[in-house]
Amino acid sequence: MAGSSFGNIFRITTWGESHGAGVGVVVDGCPAGLSLSEEDIQVYLNRRKPGQSRFSTPRKEDDCVEILSGIFEGKTTGTPISLLVRNTSQRSRDYSEIASYYRPGHADYTFDAKYGFRDYRGGGRSSGRETIGRVAAGAIAARLLNEVGISLCAYTRSIGPVAIDSFDPEECDRNPLCMPDAQAAERAGAYLRELMKEKNSSGGVVECVVQGLPAGLGDPVFEKLDANLAKAILSIGAVKGFEMGDGMAAAQATGLANNDSFVPGPNGTVTKATNHAGGVLGGISDGSPLIFRAAVKPTSSIAASQQTVNQSGEPITISVKGRHDPVIVPRAVVVVECMAALVLADALLSAMTCRMEYVKKIWQK
Amino acid sequence: MAGSSFGNIFRITTWGESHGAGVGVVVDGCPAGLSLSEEDIQVYLNRRKPGQSRFSTPRKEDDCVEILSGIFEGKTTGTPISLLVRNTSQRSRDYSEIASYYRPGHADYTFDAKYGFRDYRGGGRSSGRETIGRVAAGAIAARLLNEVGISLCAYTRSIGPVAIDSFDPEECDRNPLCMPDAQAAERAGAYLRELMKEKNSSGGVVECVVQGLPAGLGDPVFEKLDANLAKAILSIGAVKGFEMGDGMAAAQATGLANNDSFVPGPNGTVTKATNHAGGVLGGISDGSPLIFRAAVKPTSSIAASQQTVNQSGEPITISVKGRHDPVIVPRAVVVVECMAALVLADALLSAMTCRMEYVKKIWQK
Amino acid sequence: MAGSSFGNIFRITTWGESHGAGVGVVVDGCPAGLSLSEEDIQVYLNRRKPGQSRFSTPRKEDDCVEILSGIFEGKTTGTPISLLVRNTSQRSRDYSEIASYYRPGHADYTFDAKYGFRDYRGGGRSSGRETIGRVAAGAIAARLLNEVGISLCAYTRSIGPVAIDSFDPEECDRNPLCMPDAQAAERAGAYLRELMKEKNSSGGVVECVVQGLPAGLGDPVFEKLDANLAKAILSIGAVKGFEMGDGMAAAQATGLANNDSFVPGPNGTVTKATNHAGGVLGGISDGSPLIFRAAVKPTSSIAASQQTVNQSGEPITISVKGRHDPVIVPRAVVVVECMAALVLADALLSAMTCRMEYVKKIWQK
Amino acid sequence: MAGSSFGNIFRITTWGESHGAGVGVVVDGCPAGLSLSEEDIQVYLNRRKPGQSRFSTPRKEDDCVEILSGIFEGKTTGTPISLLVRNTSQRSRDYSEIASYYRPGHADYTFDAKYGFRDYRGGGRSSGRETIGRVAAGAIAARLLNEVGISLCAYTRSIGPVAIDSFDPEECDRNPLCMPDAQAAERAGAYLRELMKEKNSSGGVVECVVQGLPAGLGDPVFEKLDANLAKAILSIGAVKGFEMGDGMAAAQATGLANNDSFVPGPNGTVTKATNHAGGVLGGISDGSPLIFRAAVKPTSSIAASQQTVNQSGEPITISVKGRHDPVIVPRAVVVVECMAALVLADALLSAMTCRMEYVKKIWQK
Repeated sequence: MAGSSFGNIFRITTWGESHGAGVGVVVDGCPAGLSLSEEDIQVYLNRRKPGQSRFSTPRKEDDCVEILSGIFEGKTTGTPISLLVRNTSQRSRDYSEIASYYRPGHADYTFDAKYGFRDYRGGGRSSGRETIGRVAAGAIAARLLNEVGISLCAYTRSIGPVAIDSFDPEECDRNPLCMPDAQAAERAGAYLRELMKEKNSSGGVVECVVQGLPAGLGDPVFEKLDANLAKAILSIGAVKGFEMGDGMAAAQATGLANNDSFVPGPNGTVTKATNHAGGVLGGISDGSPLIFRAAVKPTSSIAASQQTVNQSGEPITISVKGRHDPVIVPRAVVVVECMAALVLADALLSAMTCRMEYVKKIWQK
Repeated sequence: MAGSSFGNIFRITTWGESHGAGVGVVVDGCPAGLSLSEEDIQVYLNRRKPGQSRFSTPRKEDDCVEILSGIFEGKTTGTPISLLVRNTSQRSRDYSEIASYYRPGHADYTFDAKYGFRDYRGGGRSSGRETIGRVAAGAIAARLLNEVGISLCAYTRSIGPVAIDSFDPEECDRNPLCMPDAQAAERAGAYLRELMKEKNSSGGVVECVVQGLPAGLGDPVFEKLDANLAKAILSIGAVKGFEMGDGMAAAQATGLANNDSFVPGPNGTVTKATNHAGGVLGGISDGSPLIFRAAVKPTSSIAASQQTVNQSGEPITISVKGRHDPVIVPRAVVVVECMAALVLADALLSAMTCRMEYVKKIWQK
Repeated sequence: MAGSSFGNIFRITTWGESHGAGVGVVVDGCPAGLSLSEEDIQVYLNRRKPGQSRFSTPRKEDDCVEILSGIFEGKTTGTPISLLVRNTSQRSRDYSEIASYYRPGHADYTFDAKYGFRDYRGGGRSSGRETIGRVAAGAIAARLLNEVGISLCAYTRSIGPVAIDSFDPEECDRNPLCMPDAQAAERAGAYLRELMKEKNSSGGVVECVVQGLPAGLGDPVFEKLDANLAKAILSIGAVKGFEMGDGMAAAQATGLANNDSFVPGPNGTVTKATNHAGGVLGGISDGSPLIFRAAVKPTSSIAASQQTVNQSGEPITISVKGRHDPVIVPRAVVVVECMAALVLADALLSAMTCRMEYVKKIWQK
Repeated sequence: MAGSSFGNIFRITTWGESHGAGVGVVVDGCPAGLSLSEEDIQVYLNRRKPGQSRFSTPRKEDDCVEILSGIFEGKTTGTPISLLVRNTSQRSRDYSEIASYYRPGHADYTFDAKYGFRDYRGGGRSSGRETIGRVAAGAIAARLLNEVGISLCAYTRSIGPVAIDSFDPEECDRNPLCMPDAQAAERAGAYLRELMKEKNSSGGVVECVVQGLPAGLGDPVFEKLDANLAKAILSIGAVKGFEMGDGMAAAQATGLANNDSFVPGPNGTVTKATNHAGGVLGGISDGSPLIFRAAVKPTSSIAASQQTVNQSGEPITISVKGRHDPVIVPRAVVVVECMAALVLADALLSAMTCRMEYVKKIWQK
């Protein structure tokens, strides 16, 4: 199945494995006339780079993006934008061991079950490097959204049991865990150091807030804005849960507590007194900030010894070698933000075609 | 945007509003040669019918399905199966009041924001009746899955604060709340009676388990099995959260606790000692039971008085008239099960094309 | 495969067989606010009705359309428009003979080869009645296009060897062959009468001209306007050839003769001195009238005796019973026009999303 | 609009302009386990290379393909295959002149009309170089088809008024016009030399024959095999007409002459006495060879002087500079063959999902 594309009008197609020639993405359907440079994209790629703190892998990956097509004189032309990031740090390392057994929590077994064999080097297509294409494409989507006043901000909400108590967006850039609360970041750091001693790892929660979104994006049935966000977020490896607004807690709430009252907004607009819904009603944005969360499971690659089977089905004990992040949440933050940007750019373009009034605005002579 | 279709190979298109001539669905891409009758579908529709207990609305809706095409001599022909359910209980009720304001928790405001106006009668396209098409189509998908040994079972896991403690699948049919635990059902019933006195409503959680799924379904990147399930489930009105396996709890777990060890299974197969993952690794089914949950928000239509604004933006106090379910979870159960069946039928057909070995099995002379 | 949908943004899904309960179509993605009644659609359906002349079958088919959803207070709501036409003239006729052999020129054999069995009654899904859904949907697309000044006109260009010499659009409605040349229509009528004596049939050419199309519709690569028109037209049963502008003749032309010079148009516009291209350059409309042709093969069902095989593979001689049109070209005219309308409506909506300038026009606050 | 993808299950996405960094394609949905090397693809790319005869441009373009992903140990892995061809012969040539006016027969004007501006260097996305991605992808599709006994052969059927009289497939490789008739090739060569003296160009017809195709590929309604072939072929720049089997001539035929009788074939199979249909009935392959033709217009870039307008709309006289092929038909041959291969690979995979019998063959334990 052709499963590497995402989006309808603003559509991306990612490709590439951990140990092939490179990874990349083709962005098709981006409107003409958006100013764009490699630097605009590189800024986002740098946010997902490893090797920036003791909690991320010390691998050196430059991940320099090259724009291969679709830009002319600094602007998008409306034709596909092809982006390439070469794999530079391919080690001559021996992968024969990893080839012979199934790592718990990884897709080794399921790739064999699906395709009959697998590219076992570094996770192949299931490698975290696959997200490079998402982030590079998401950077373009975010730029498009910015042009009409929409901005996204994702951050680490919790790591293991340690959650934020306060919110200072600028703090996100100051601590390696991307938490908007310095004290929580410190506690989370201590928690991770303990786990590292045990050769263990931690999960966490990424939260994303979108400001400036007009009411009216998303569709009432299958293409609900929240449904597409859920797919986008669950399509990121290691994500196990998705919450819109109050999320799972809504299941324990009552209607009186959960309903958001509409109230008069500034300049004759309509707004909501609360935002339990997280900015979407009936699948369509309601003009309030969009709020959603992703639960990220603990890093599967741990140095502690684990039970598994080899390809002959015999039980063995392994410990996953190499340096791995004790938590992938901070690196997932920009991926979550970018996937959301892709969903919203697509919804924004799509909503342009939903009224005869708009059709006439563009086409009537 | 054309947002009323779901699925790629096994694809459905639903249509219809609460107060139009009817609701329906076209199922396209169903393989030829599946035996199918109206009765097979009606059984599923009956499960979502209201009026079956004191906790669901006493509206009389027969919801009799008519197969309009795609079946010949009791079998699918491979061409589109069109299903129609006429709206029979259209009341002459006056909707002019509801037309004039925005009900909290409903899509009234967002429809106006998106389309410029709305069919305000009974929620229009956002009505719960829209799920009839999903359930009718899902019944066909479930039948297809059954043919190769795959079965689905959804049930109410919790209502408000009351969760199940035990699991007896047959109990689901015995209590009106569709809970597999008779005692929990009784406690939940008491809880709901209290809320009804307050003209209030409750949310809850639906859980779904799939047995017999082969390993190898789903795709590694955007078409991950869990990503498509998340979209399917969040596309159901009132769902605010989705969890795969351990779900949100995985964010608080450690790698050692969360990783599922592979162990030798019967007859040389590979299986897992635990199933924190919920049956999917790297987006592909791993042969364990699939387990996921949906958080359903409390019924938005409550008789208690609420604040909102009218279409002129002026604040008003309303109380939603009519009889409404104090909880929609029991009726959502079959919808969740059917949406999952649609995702799985599509993934099953899709996975037939992923290996040259399969291509040769079908086409080599 | 889900093969009964057409279009991306303005997307239709047709369903139904000759002898099932009915035929129909779901139109998804039509913008909200287009005024639409059953009468608007019925006018188009009446154009494809048989029984209007001696050259079309005397079957009585009322083909009354019912709008099941998507319209409120006389306007489209932006949600799916479901249209139903009941099959009223189902004869109790015995189809057991037709079930046993393969009619030359028909899809009996290929349906068996594909699906393993077939609904043999009246051609099943391959019946000409399948076009009812296309025409009903096309009527809506045409209405949308009219709102921004685009109009379509298809007609019979030739029947067998008899081609038109002059062009009077009003004449199309005056003769049963839908030819814009009364004298040609008379000659073609004489030709057909001769064929009918021989229990034979004739092919012909349908031509379609689109006026008022803005330059800039269509995409430069796979979604070229002419590529989508070609698919649309070849998807009509019995069509064997497609020509854009000069079509096949362009292959015999030279560059000097075939290139259309650009010349200054009225009010500072750019136009072309000639229109060999048929209104499209590089897959994108150029502002000139769109002109294309469809070659329709002779009616396959003929009363003359023919050789074929039965389902056991034994050679037999048959003559197809029932009354059949000696030429289907006049009835194909409205189908061609409607398929073109569907392609253009989709391209019109799609092109709204191709420039940042348009994005800002709709979304900038 | 995202218009650079083609196919559903076997889907390609092309990107790249004449004067950007390169051109390429992502092939998604190719089954795992197909052996594939860069050499397999290069062989096809070499067939479309210019500079091989006096009738094609003397530009030096190496067009060496690099496989960036999707292959492991010489076999496809089932994940996207990304192919890159760098643009090596980018000239420092001054394009300011071409930037200022609209070349007749080219997409300069329509790109401006659509996007508001254009990459004017060498035709940008409308350059013939865009076909590199199609050919590279088509090479993979052809390899897949070969594995189950399906082979394609395209060739030049006519150039201007000179058509082939005989058919010797091996002759195609011996003359630079790719004609299967040495004498016709000689006459066509003489015709082209005359046109070159006049700074003029010629069109022609490409024909393609597919052998070994099983009956049963293609869908009965919109995804007819011939409809998808028509789209594929019309999506190639410069193609103005498409014929399936007898094509346009079918419009002048009678039913008795045009119907192909079914006759008993070898080993109890069913075959046809003639093949006017070109191997497809009701949109589904009938087991006979598939035969179709594409009409290619004359090269638009001619050195003879022509009238046009500049971007200010003023009339000017131009003559297109640079060396251009007097006929592009021979280079289009491999592009036609490759587009057909893409359609057929997609149809082959799609048809695997159309019967419950096949579903059980793959999935029943």
